[in-house]
Amino acid sequence: MNDQSLFPKATKAALKNNPPGAWMPALPKGCIRLSSGYPAPELIPSEQIKAAVDKLIQEEHDLPLHYLGSPRIKSLQRQLQRRLEERGISVQEGELLITSGGCQAIDLIARTLLDEETAIAVESPSYMEALEIFQNYTNQIITIPVDERGLQTNTLETILTERKRDGLTLPRFLYTIPSFHNPTGTTMTPERRSHLLELSIKFDFLIVEDDAYGELAFLDSPTPIKANDSAGRVLHIGSLSKVVAPGMRIGWVVGDRELVSAFAWFKKDLDHPFAQATMAAYLENVEFEQRLTLLREEYRTKRDTMIQALEQFLPSSVTWHVPEGGYFVWVKIPGIETSCLLEKALVEGVSYIPGKYFFLNQKDGSEFLRLSFSYSQKEEIIQGIQKLGKLLS
Amino acid sequence: MNDQSLFPKATKAALKNNPPGAWMPALPKGCIRLSSGYPAPELIPSEQIKAAVDKLIQEEHDLPLHYLGSPRIKSLQRQLQRRLEERGISVQEGELLITSGGCQAIDLIARTLLDEETAIAVESPSYMEALEIFQNYTNQIITIPVDERGLQTNTLETILTERKRDGLTLPRFLYTIPSFHNPTGTTMTPERRSHLLELSIKFDFLIVEDDAYGELAFLDSPTPIKANDSAGRVLHIGSLSKVVAPGMRIGWVVGDRELVSAFAWFKKDLDHPFAQATMAAYLENVEFEQRLTLLREEYRTKRDTMIQALEQFLPSSVTWHVPEGGYFVWVKIPGIETSCLLEKALVEGVSYIPGKYFFLNQKDGSEFLRLSFSYSQKEEIIQGIQKLGKLLS
Repeated sequence: MNDQSLFPKATKAALKNNPPGAWMPALPKGCIRLSSGYPAPELIPSEQIKAAVDKLIQEEHDLPLHYLGSPRIKSLQRQLQRRLEERGISVQEGELLITSGGCQAIDLIARTLLDEETAIAVESPSYMEALEIFQNYTNQIITIPVDERGLQTNTLETILTERKRDGLTLPRFLYTIPSFHNPTGTTMTPERRSHLLELSIKFDFLIVEDDAYGELAFLDSPTPIKANDSAGRVLHIGSLSKVVAPGMRIGWVVGDRELVSAFAWFKKDLDHPFAQATMAAYLENVEFEQRLTLLREEYRTKRDTMIQALEQFLPSSVTWHVPEGGYFVWVKIPGIETSCLLEKALVEGVSYIPGKYFFLNQKDGSEFLRLSFSYSQKEEIIQGIQKLGKLLS
Repeated sequence: MNDQSLFPKATKAALKNNPPGAWMPALPKGCIRLSSGYPAPELIPSEQIKAAVDKLIQEEHDLPLHYLGSPRIKSLQRQLQRRLEERGISVQEGELLITSGGCQAIDLIARTLLDEETAIAVESPSYMEALEIFQNYTNQIITIPVDERGLQTNTLETILTERKRDGLTLPRFLYTIPSFHNPTGTTMTPERRSHLLELSIKFDFLIVEDDAYGELAFLDSPTPIKANDSAGRVLHIGSLSKVVAPGMRIGWVVGDRELVSAFAWFKKDLDHPFAQATMAAYLENVEFEQRLTLLREEYRTKRDTMIQALEQFLPSSVTWHVPEGGYFVWVKIPGIETSCLLEKALVEGVSYIPGKYFFLNQKDGSEFLRLSFSYSQKEEIIQGIQKLGKLLS
């Protein structure tokens, strides 16, 4: 059977742009995983989640295992709403949709708002999975550079002004990870956040704010862009993956009610009653601010360990950005093709993600690489950087 | 902000065809829920699922709570594959995708294979949620009646022959619930299953076989269409919702590897490590054939209770189909608009789903209604039918 003839036009285009298949080689046994953007295993609250399930079943019996019916599903909505309000984001009725992770929120937004005639703007570099998702819907992707102060909003303004003047399609939305950006670890300054909001009104686009790392600040917590969204243009995506556990698949999108209602319409995995009720039961019993303090302390220590190791073991030509939160250090190794170096690194026993994979055009970013300090133990971080240093000496 | 201008053409079409919003009125307190296609609460293995989580965390600690890593994710694939093979469905590498419930499988298939230029064929009546999903992608929906022996394959052949002769679009796939059909409870005969497979080759369409109820046979288990799929044309959808619990959201699609790979590409809620690993741990510890025997016995008894009550309490003009498995009895009340009767029924304290909601054209099915015997206790079933009888006397 010739499957290709089965696929409609849009499907063919999506599959062609993004040939499925792993590009990241398998990691050898014992490899120090500085590539994994995973939470630290020791910080996953597995015992508390087990206790939450015990409590849930004891109190509710079969209710959380049906299609609907656990009162804790509404509890989770209220808990998330409260946390958002503590961060300055007001949530009205119908403005919050719980999704199966942040990725699903991105996909629902793209699926609802994009087709091959729409354009979007993204940061360059950006979250790989998001770039893949967007390319399933459109090829009109405008890329705007990120520097140490985050998205270059002046460059954005220039590009949009020119596009408008030349009669080119303006973006339907701009996708940004303003706090502890993946992969650069940078944070968009308050000035640029204001500027971005102004531009969204001037050029009539939505802002899709991916705040997956936003609560992992080592010093001051940046104010979400959504907290200043008086014009109702921001769709705020969040996730409990980095602050509780990814395996529960709990994320959300907050925004304009009509848009959120449309996202809900297209969400066909329905709710996840058991996972959501378990998360609600877990959150009831945890002192969340205390947990956040612990996470921030642990990750800050790991960041410090990595930065010190970079200073100690890498040649002086190598530069990096010191992140103020989150998981990642973005490193530049002038004159080196980091995707080629990866093979040697794996033999040496350390992994990272080559920078070019975070760019739409994979000719960019070849000298960069992303290191995660989140997952590995401190000793492993030091050893991993030492191995990297050996390769570059 | 004018949201309507934000939506691309396909999104507008989808939202227009299917205005979001509940059509089913809220059920009054104490209402006997003969509308709920839910498993029986007493058959939900909540204690065993709690025990499965306890075992899982004890053995694997944080592993099932990360993005990947629990070995039980592969276990679940093997367990499902074994169960399918026991039912005559061979599963090769890459042919099985675990989905978040059967609904997500339907949506992924539709999303991958349909656009406004493709046509599909469905049974009439059919599963409401599936009809909604398909209408998100195409308006070209050919409906084929169902009778006591299931899908009318002769009618299908006639319609497709005429369409081909007239140069009209032939369906990309036909969606069927051949065993213990929702809503009619009918089962497609073996002869018609063979005929359908022949037609799929003759007219070059795929068969999407929704087997959500297939294991709930009260006598002989029907052979899945997929078990005779030598031409590789069947996409088999299954679910553990009815045989374990809906709240875990575990379903699957089995079929041609290239198609399944495309479905996986568009699945952006990623895997559900915790739910999948929990299900695998549960299945390890349950004697599944024994459980199925218990379920079949319990549901058969409930069916018998409902049929006896129908015979006892409803006027002789009312007819129904006696299902050989599954959850539903499809009832015809000549001369009555069952969607209008519903209001009185709710006042009386019994609910059902009016038949017209299962038809693409809601002028059809107005004299029908769907009763579920799965959820309620036997006494409630009797009382509920008695209340219905009162309304019709």
